[in-house]
Amino acid sequence: MTNDIIVAPATALGGAIAVIRASGEGSVVLCDHIFRGRTPLVEASSHTIHYGTICDGERVVDDVVVAVFRAPHSYTGEESVEISIHGSRYIASEVIRLLCEGGARMAEAGEFSQRALASGRIDLSQAEAVADLIAAESRAAHMVAATQMRGGYSEMLEQLRSELLNVTTLLELELDFSEEDVEFADRARLQQMLEQTDRVVLRLMESFRVGNAIREGVSVAIVGRPNVGKSTLLNRLVGDDRAMVSDIAGTTRDTIEESVVIDDIRFRFVDTAGLHDTEDRLEKMGIERTERAIRQAQIVLYMVEPLQRELELPTLSDEQTMLVVVNKMDTTSERSVEGALYISARDGEGVEALRRALRSTVDTEGLYRGEVVVSNMRHFEALTRAHTSLQGAVSALAMGVSEELLAEDIRSAINALAEITGRITSDDILKNVFANFCIGK
Amino acid sequence: MTNDIIVAPATALGGAIAVIRASGEGSVVLCDHIFRGRTPLVEASSHTIHYGTICDGERVVDDVVVAVFRAPHSYTGEESVEISIHGSRYIASEVIRLLCEGGARMAEAGEFSQRALASGRIDLSQAEAVADLIAAESRAAHMVAATQMRGGYSEMLEQLRSELLNVTTLLELELDFSEEDVEFADRARLQQMLEQTDRVVLRLMESFRVGNAIREGVSVAIVGRPNVGKSTLLNRLVGDDRAMVSDIAGTTRDTIEESVVIDDIRFRFVDTAGLHDTEDRLEKMGIERTERAIRQAQIVLYMVEPLQRELELPTLSDEQTMLVVVNKMDTTSERSVEGALYISARDGEGVEALRRALRSTVDTEGLYRGEVVVSNMRHFEALTRAHTSLQGAVSALAMGVSEELLAEDIRSAINALAEITGRITSDDILKNVFANFCIGK
Repeated sequence: MTNDIIVAPATALGGAIAVIRASGEGSVVLCDHIFRGRTPLVEASSHTIHYGTICDGERVVDDVVVAVFRAPHSYTGEESVEISIHGSRYIASEVIRLLCEGGARMAEAGEFSQRALASGRIDLSQAEAVADLIAAESRAAHMVAATQMRGGYSEMLEQLRSELLNVTTLLELELDFSEEDVEFADRARLQQMLEQTDRVVLRLMESFRVGNAIREGVSVAIVGRPNVGKSTLLNRLVGDDRAMVSDIAGTTRDTIEESVVIDDIRFRFVDTAGLHDTEDRLEKMGIERTERAIRQAQIVLYMVEPLQRELELPTLSDEQTMLVVVNKMDTTSERSVEGALYISARDGEGVEALRRALRSTVDTEGLYRGEVVVSNMRHFEALTRAHTSLQGAVSALAMGVSEELLAEDIRSAINALAEITGRITSDDILKNVFANFCIGK
Repeated sequence: MTNDIIVAPATALGGAIAVIRASGEGSVVLCDHIFRGRTPLVEASSHTIHYGTICDGERVVDDVVVAVFRAPHSYTGEESVEISIHGSRYIASEVIRLLCEGGARMAEAGEFSQRALASGRIDLSQAEAVADLIAAESRAAHMVAATQMRGGYSEMLEQLRSELLNVTTLLELELDFSEEDVEFADRARLQQMLEQTDRVVLRLMESFRVGNAIREGVSVAIVGRPNVGKSTLLNRLVGDDRAMVSDIAGTTRDTIEESVVIDDIRFRFVDTAGLHDTEDRLEKMGIERTERAIRQAQIVLYMVEPLQRELELPTLSDEQTMLVVVNKMDTTSERSVEGALYISARDGEGVEALRRALRSTVDTEGLYRGEVVVSNMRHFEALTRAHTSLQGAVSALAMGVSEELLAEDIRSAINALAEITGRITSDDILKNVFANFCIGK
């Protein structure tokens, strides 16, 4: 079956130039119909650029350069063109209109990547990594996505999967010869191998805590009594944001959540309403929101005044970190709270130490040593299912159950791992994955 | 003198891909230092594309394709590279950082176009047209900018200038032979030629009214008593906006000004506070703002109720258009205001006729016939100075003043025309023009 030709802007619009991408067999001929250059594009070799104009009949729409990619040497693996136009929305919509009138159609979200997947150029986890790479706002998030995109993770999963596959082949062979009561698979080695595989799966699952924090940003709830200086601290942390990222073009900032990159990690700070007893209904609602923010935060930054006697520290789960911060140290030198960080949000004293304390809550040593870090919830869920099945297989083996049930557990684990790279996928999985892509990717 | 290497994102960031552009002698070698591909870029021919990775030492920053342009066959006329990266801000900032560490520097606003100008690839009015083209949001605005970019306007000005230049040469020759009292330039033909030139200049000046409306959008003040339905009408006009432009990516809408493309022209609607007598200080301020909006509008859309007896129509200048609109025609069939448009903003009745009436206030016949339309205030001002000088020359000729003074007037006209295409420019003019460009253009 031949794919139809899809078209979409590949870049954001509004810059000096924009790129319109069309992919599918016949896309070069299609583009040729509206292109006037020195030579026709159909005669162009792959990976060449051609200056000319895009015309709507006699009317010149724009001066452009067209890049020609021949199959299979393009992102999608299909014949493709990339038209660099002047970056106006009007011109972009005109060029897309002309291509659609010639027989192309507007691409759906993620459709270019879906074709790259279908042509076997990338697997599903690599396609997901491309989306993560585009969204990466910090060095660590970039590292996680880039590693995944380059396929190290896929190779690792493929290896686990193929080892498990070997085992099931042997077990199925035993089933075929079941009347003769032979064991092709040595049970002791089988158990060792299943436990070994499960350990790798568990390690990947454990990496999700850090991976997810890196991908989504670490959530920090700033909590404390009214007027303790929560907003002042937040403003100072945001003002100190030295990430080059925001130098190039302003990042939109939300009123309730502020994003700050500290070194290589993004932190999402939520300023909460003050925590105090009240009978007022509206204030109670604010406090409920605060309690929810605390439950959802990875770090609770608990701010107090230098002379605040009792600390009403909220109870946190094992996965959460509490940082007690004594503010307003420009007004006193009293240091009575043990293990606390002493700062002055107003004049900045101690804030660098606080930034260091925040950064140290995320352990990226493994990541930078080259270990695979799982950052995708879908992968985490599939790994969890693989882990459950592997544990089932290990107990089945210990209890000496039939080869049939054992093979069933191992096949479930194989399928769960295969879902990650997309070797086994349902349309539902694909739809969910690509729905989160932007148009043009 | 060799230019240094400048670098900037050429596209907006945030899409699937983004393009980083570097220009200047040595930019290919510079890029090669951080690029790993099948063959080095230094061996690449012009207009070829190369797949590879951008690396920071051992760390892979991104998988990219690099387009190589050899001088003089690039936008700037210089050796250039365009690096297509995944569209993340982080990757963009990393690639720019690496190029800058290698010796490039971040480009200033408009600097690529300024180099295209310096290398003689485009003239100043064409460079300005590029910026207008990028900003064009309607078919007419695109047409104005595209015509100017393609150089038709420049040629026309160049012709006027060269005719005037011939005349001054003859007049200066007369000055050289002044003791012999010869006339190389026939005075009758000279007058005819000056008047002819002046007519062309005047026609260009007159086109500015339409050109400016097309470029900036036609401003429409919606005026009327409170609750007459101004906001309802505005919402309906905006909701009906069928421009494909806003289909591709949401256009940010301002609360007080709404932009709507009707056919090929953009209209900027300003919803004003109701017009009525009041002693309240705050309301008075609102009404002052309304009066200012009326003064600045090209069209005043005056809304009334079906039974409103007296119309307090504001006084408009000759260049302004008044449209009286009777709203709420779903509640009555009374049509008592002569020359008015009858609509129901609520159910949409008559709104299409209103759109037609608005559109017909802008005469684009000349534009689509291929006439040059001036849309740039700087050009209009230069044309006005040329016109004044030409009028001076015509009267000087009629009064029989000396060749010296006559030549002086004509030279002023020549200089004014030369400013438009940039044949004569000061650093101030260049600075002003390019300050309005975006980085990367």
